Amino acid sequence: MTLDNIKEEIEKANSIVLLTHENPDGDAIGSTLAFYLALKQLGKEVDIIIPKFSRTFAFLPGAEKIMKEGTKTQYDLAIALDSADLKRLNGWVNYFEDAKVTVSIDHHGSNQMYADFNFVNPAAPACAQILVTVLEFLQVEITKDIGTCLLTGIITDTGGFKYPGVTAETFEFASWLLGIGVNVSEIYKKVLQVKTKSNFELSKIAMDRLEFLEDGKIAYTYITNEDLEKVNAETGDHEGLVEIGRDVEGVEVSIFLREEEKGIKASLRSNDYLNVSDVCIAFGGGGHPRAAGCTIIGTMEHAKQKIISQIKQNLK
Amino acid sequence: MTLDNIKEEIEKANSIVLLTHENPDGDAIGSTLAFYLALKQLGKEVDIIIPKFSRTFAFLPGAEKIMKEGTKTQYDLAIALDSADLKRLNGWVNYFEDAKVTVSIDHHGSNQMYADFNFVNPAAPACAQILVTVLEFLQVEITKDIGTCLLTGIITDTGGFKYPGVTAETFEFASWLLGIGVNVSEIYKKVLQVKTKSNFELSKIAMDRLEFLEDGKIAYTYITNEDLEKVNAETGDHEGLVEIGRDVEGVEVSIFLREEEKGIKASLRSNDYLNVSDVCIAFGGGGHPRAAGCTIIGTMEHAKQKIISQIKQNLK
Repeated sequence: MTLDNIKEEIEKANSIVLLTHENPDGDAIGSTLAFYLALKQLGKEVDIIIPKFSRTFAFLPGAEKIMKEGTKTQYDLAIALDSADLKRLNGWVNYFEDAKVTVSIDHHGSNQMYADFNFVNPAAPACAQILVTVLEFLQVEITKDIGTCLLTGIITDTGGFKYPGVTAETFEFASWLLGIGVNVSEIYKKVLQVKTKSNFELSKIAMDRLEFLEDGKIAYTYITNEDLEKVNAETGDHEGLVEIGRDVEGVEVSIFLREEEKGIKASLRSNDYLNVSDVCIAFGGGGHPRAAGCTIIGTMEHAKQKIISQIKQNLK
Repeated sequence: MTLDNIKEEIEKANSIVLLTHENPDGDAIGSTLAFYLALKQLGKEVDIIIPKFSRTFAFLPGAEKIMKEGTKTQYDLAIALDSADLKRLNGWVNYFEDAKVTVSIDHHGSNQMYADFNFVNPAAPACAQILVTVLEFLQVEITKDIGTCLLTGIITDTGGFKYPGVTAETFEFASWLLGIGVNVSEIYKKVLQVKTKSNFELSKIAMDRLEFLEDGKIAYTYITNEDLEKVNAETGDHEGLVEIGRDVEGVEVSIFLREEEKGIKASLRSNDYLNVSDVCIAFGGGGHPRAAGCTIIGTMEHAKQKIISQIKQNLK
């Protein structure tokens, strides 16, 4: 089975590189760091490459080991965590493509099975929850540090134990982590609750601009690069803004747009039935049924109209 | 022991009335409804009196049985849930004082031990979590309906499993509830996540007015009755506004004021060390170390200055 193969490849490899998706969230960073600490526990030589990430996650054990680029051009083994496709490894996909053997561990239903060995479970609410199984299989001891990283992934991708994907195992694992001394509420606070001043200012702007469309079923808002400059925003300071609209009574889909180098980056969230992953796949993006994203070339207004017209096809 | 006494009094009583604190939150309503359903399961005659509560909780099993006033002037047994003192039973304290025997089940550290039998555990993150023990002792089967009410209490008072008071048992109970078919994410969404349109509008107003004082350690904001009218606010629509300031980086205490008949109602939240229960006790209020409230006679500005000067004594 796949886990046997993965175990064997890890044992054989003299050099391993860990990668995750661009704009890495807490599940991407947490899963990758947890796996890094696990491989170090097994005595492996490992590089972890994440060129840019939010300072929210700088407190995580092992974060100081994160590199902007690799120490080798070819690794024996490349492992991608929480990444549905190769495109999302953007910018450092070469480390993956050039590796002798590749592995993907992920929980996206849209995973492209792009690696030599793919361990994908879309029923898991977070990639980090899959790693609990993987690490047990690899006979890694889940230490307080590894637990902290895994919990960060779970808390991020479940919105703090609130999304429907949460399973009995999610709560059991959290209970177990409390038992080994992981400070669940401290991690929760750092990862999900505390906003930077810039994020607070951006929230104000996004709320003021929020429009309710289609009888209040769609919430739409945006921020511009000018806004980001005005509030001295850093990487990650726009996180969570898409949720402002999603959480208002009657809203089915929330759209949040911002400017990126490659075009307009859209983040979509839905509440009850609309598959936003399908909406985003139509524009070359993807994600989960209730949380997805894509990039659209053109103006903000163009992107807004394109997405709304796509959503309207499935709005009840 | 107290639980034996409580059990005996319940067995003896021919009429029972359940009460909770004014401005009832999810723990107050959830605990009271859970206990109501439990006593009905034991075949008791029970009235549940809560004159006013947020429509957020109207979905809870048994909510349709809630009365604005009692059917009797004297009950054999009055049980107060989640209430630190008699004052907070304001408006319907007579049902408590006139009852032949009284019981209080609560988790406030400031509980005044005002009943004949007091079962108080300040280590529990929610009154609802104490009820898990109490109901097991009473040999009540925790049904899906009772579980829904208890989970509502736990989710409300732990901010969705995030406050430091959360214990391994909290997560274990949530895991167990998932197992018996309680829709944890649906309850979470209804109770904590979804905002009414009026609450959204009030959030905008509160955010726009938010001031950072004392080097950003204090966040202060308020809403007026005029604001409430403007956005057509209903009971409970101001809930959560105090958290906006609390969750900004660097803030230790968040103050939220609003106008009430009796004066200016202050809600306080703190993050790391400042005991806001002590601050509020100084003004005749109370609560928990990190979440408390009080009412101050006078203008909004007067209340603001009074509270800030009290807080400053303990601000590091």
